[in-house]
Amino acid sequence: MEENNDITRTELDELGEFGLIDRLTQDFPLRNPSSLKGVGDDAAVINHEGYRTLVSVDLLVEGIHFDMTYTPLRHLGYKSAVVNFSDIYAMNGTPTQIVVGLGISNRYSAEALDELYSGIRLACEEYHVDMVGGDTTSSKSGLVISITVIGMAKEEDVVYRSGAKPNDLLCVSGDLGGAYMGLLVLEREKAEFLANPNMQPQLQGFDYVLQRQLKPEARRDIVARFKELGIKPTSMIDISDGLASEVLHLCKESGVGCQLFEGKIPQDPTTVKIAKDFQIVPSIAALNGGEDYELLFTIDQNDYEKIQKMSEDVSIIGYMTPDKGIAELITPDNHAIPLKAQGWNHFKTES
Amino acid sequence: MEENNDITRTELDELGEFGLIDRLTQDFPLRNPSSLKGVGDDAAVINHEGYRTLVSVDLLVEGIHFDMTYTPLRHLGYKSAVVNFSDIYAMNGTPTQIVVGLGISNRYSAEALDELYSGIRLACEEYHVDMVGGDTTSSKSGLVISITVIGMAKEEDVVYRSGAKPNDLLCVSGDLGGAYMGLLVLEREKAEFLANPNMQPQLQGFDYVLQRQLKPEARRDIVARFKELGIKPTSMIDISDGLASEVLHLCKESGVGCQLFEGKIPQDPTTVKIAKDFQIVPSIAALNGGEDYELLFTIDQNDYEKIQKMSEDVSIIGYMTPDKGIAELITPDNHAIPLKAQGWNHFKTES
Repeated sequence: MEENNDITRTELDELGEFGLIDRLTQDFPLRNPSSLKGVGDDAAVINHEGYRTLVSVDLLVEGIHFDMTYTPLRHLGYKSAVVNFSDIYAMNGTPTQIVVGLGISNRYSAEALDELYSGIRLACEEYHVDMVGGDTTSSKSGLVISITVIGMAKEEDVVYRSGAKPNDLLCVSGDLGGAYMGLLVLEREKAEFLANPNMQPQLQGFDYVLQRQLKPEARRDIVARFKELGIKPTSMIDISDGLASEVLHLCKESGVGCQLFEGKIPQDPTTVKIAKDFQIVPSIAALNGGEDYELLFTIDQNDYEKIQKMSEDVSIIGYMTPDKGIAELITPDNHAIPLKAQGWNHFKTES
Repeated sequence: MEENNDITRTELDELGEFGLIDRLTQDFPLRNPSSLKGVGDDAAVINHEGYRTLVSVDLLVEGIHFDMTYTPLRHLGYKSAVVNFSDIYAMNGTPTQIVVGLGISNRYSAEALDELYSGIRLACEEYHVDMVGGDTTSSKSGLVISITVIGMAKEEDVVYRSGAKPNDLLCVSGDLGGAYMGLLVLEREKAEFLANPNMQPQLQGFDYVLQRQLKPEARRDIVARFKELGIKPTSMIDISDGLASEVLHLCKESGVGCQLFEGKIPQDPTTVKIAKDFQIVPSIAALNGGEDYELLFTIDQNDYEKIQKMSEDVSIIGYMTPDKGIAELITPDNHAIPLKAQGWNHFKTES
């Protein structure tokens, strides 16, 4: 919960804009043959001959998406990159390049930004993605991180949100609700720390949910398994705003309905335990908590046997119906409740 | 200098994130065959088969890059898009798609954001570019606009900053220093308005420099003429930080030196007159003032006759030398002064 003690602190105005850019963007080797030109020109040059190019952008704003009190900058850099990669996997593609826009206040030293970039660098290494450009500028208040990811996919591989058909199986990777529980734990410790700054944070036993919140991974492995098994989902989306919101997106874009079984929602025992400690119904954490970055997808029933081979990583949680606009949660005692997207309404949390 | 009087004011929390996104992103028809899928999925899908994909990002932050006191939102939207297009033209390419990241505070109404997007829409229309995705979130303070542009170019057409050779001619499109003079005029009127809010701003006679500052254009026409005339610049960059800074970029990336003739720097008579009123040497406004978004490029001497056909739009302002690292400004009385990049050191202007 403490700020990094900078042994060396280099002020940004000592470096100037170009000095800072040189410092931050060094040591990002290009790993993809399609990355023809990276940082250092007016634009990056990419060669995706014969493939579809995929593009997505995410903007992360201090005080809205992250709280510097408990977010290590290295983790923040890693997460900022990985959540973008997740958007490309959700198209059944492979992320290949990112460009990074950074707005920074003088409050940050060059060393702090090195930390942020070390996280971005690690994510690029892990996911074999090239950092090929960016824009670094100052900001009047806090940190703003804009990451645009470019990816590729063969024409026949691209999966949209709009392809779900009635009777398709609704599936999700991994388990849900953990990232939201991690956030609640961190917020609780922050509140206690503010009340009593001498107190040490109590984070033992929360490793799983803290990692889900602070250092999430994108499900590259799921997309790779699809290829091995010859599965092409009929629709797919990544879970950034909570399961309910994403199910509704698939239904809306595909023009179908859905029956989602509450009892089938996969949850880690740690998540369930912490949710109960917070007096939250665990499935609500999965439905309305965000940032799990798991993949939600539909498959044709003919792929049922294939998907069974992924049963360690994938849960079947429902099926699509012809009832356009009707998405229902089926409770364990067989009540049907209309699904509602609580999502992250950032506009409402602000004063 | 007045804030827009919203007849209708729709608060952002009435719309929610998805409602706002739907509202802002409607009415952006796709114009390029390469734009296979626009807004509404995890990523946009682009088909640049057989072409190089070019990518660039710019981050614009309220209070740093623009001042809402005198920047109409529609102009701001237009400029945000156009300055990105300029980066793609500077690679001798064609911008084809943008994705828009927007951080907004509650201070803005939905109608204000409509204005911003109407400017982005106009720029997309004028330049035949598709808006294919984005991310809209809240911000604790002020407006943050992140635009990533995707462009394309044939492999053999891409021009880097690094290709200038000794004896190449250094050329620039249009005229320089106007955007900076526009900024000074606006800052002066703002100061007077703050001192006496009943005063009407005096902006007559300043149309040219105000347009250069508030509604710049990217030099698509120059790139089109290159193709007509069979000119391929050996290196190119767009002028966002001032002529001096950009010349130094070309020299550094190409490993050459440069002799730049002060007397050859093209300037509009209005710019010269206003600079003198502000007691600024006009060429200094061109060398160190930014945001002109003209193209600075080098050509082989063999292309001299071809470039003469563009003499209405292009000025030859110097030549490259083998003296790596030595970039000099030659004054009208034949003194050689080392070029220095003042640029926009945003980090220094902040408190």
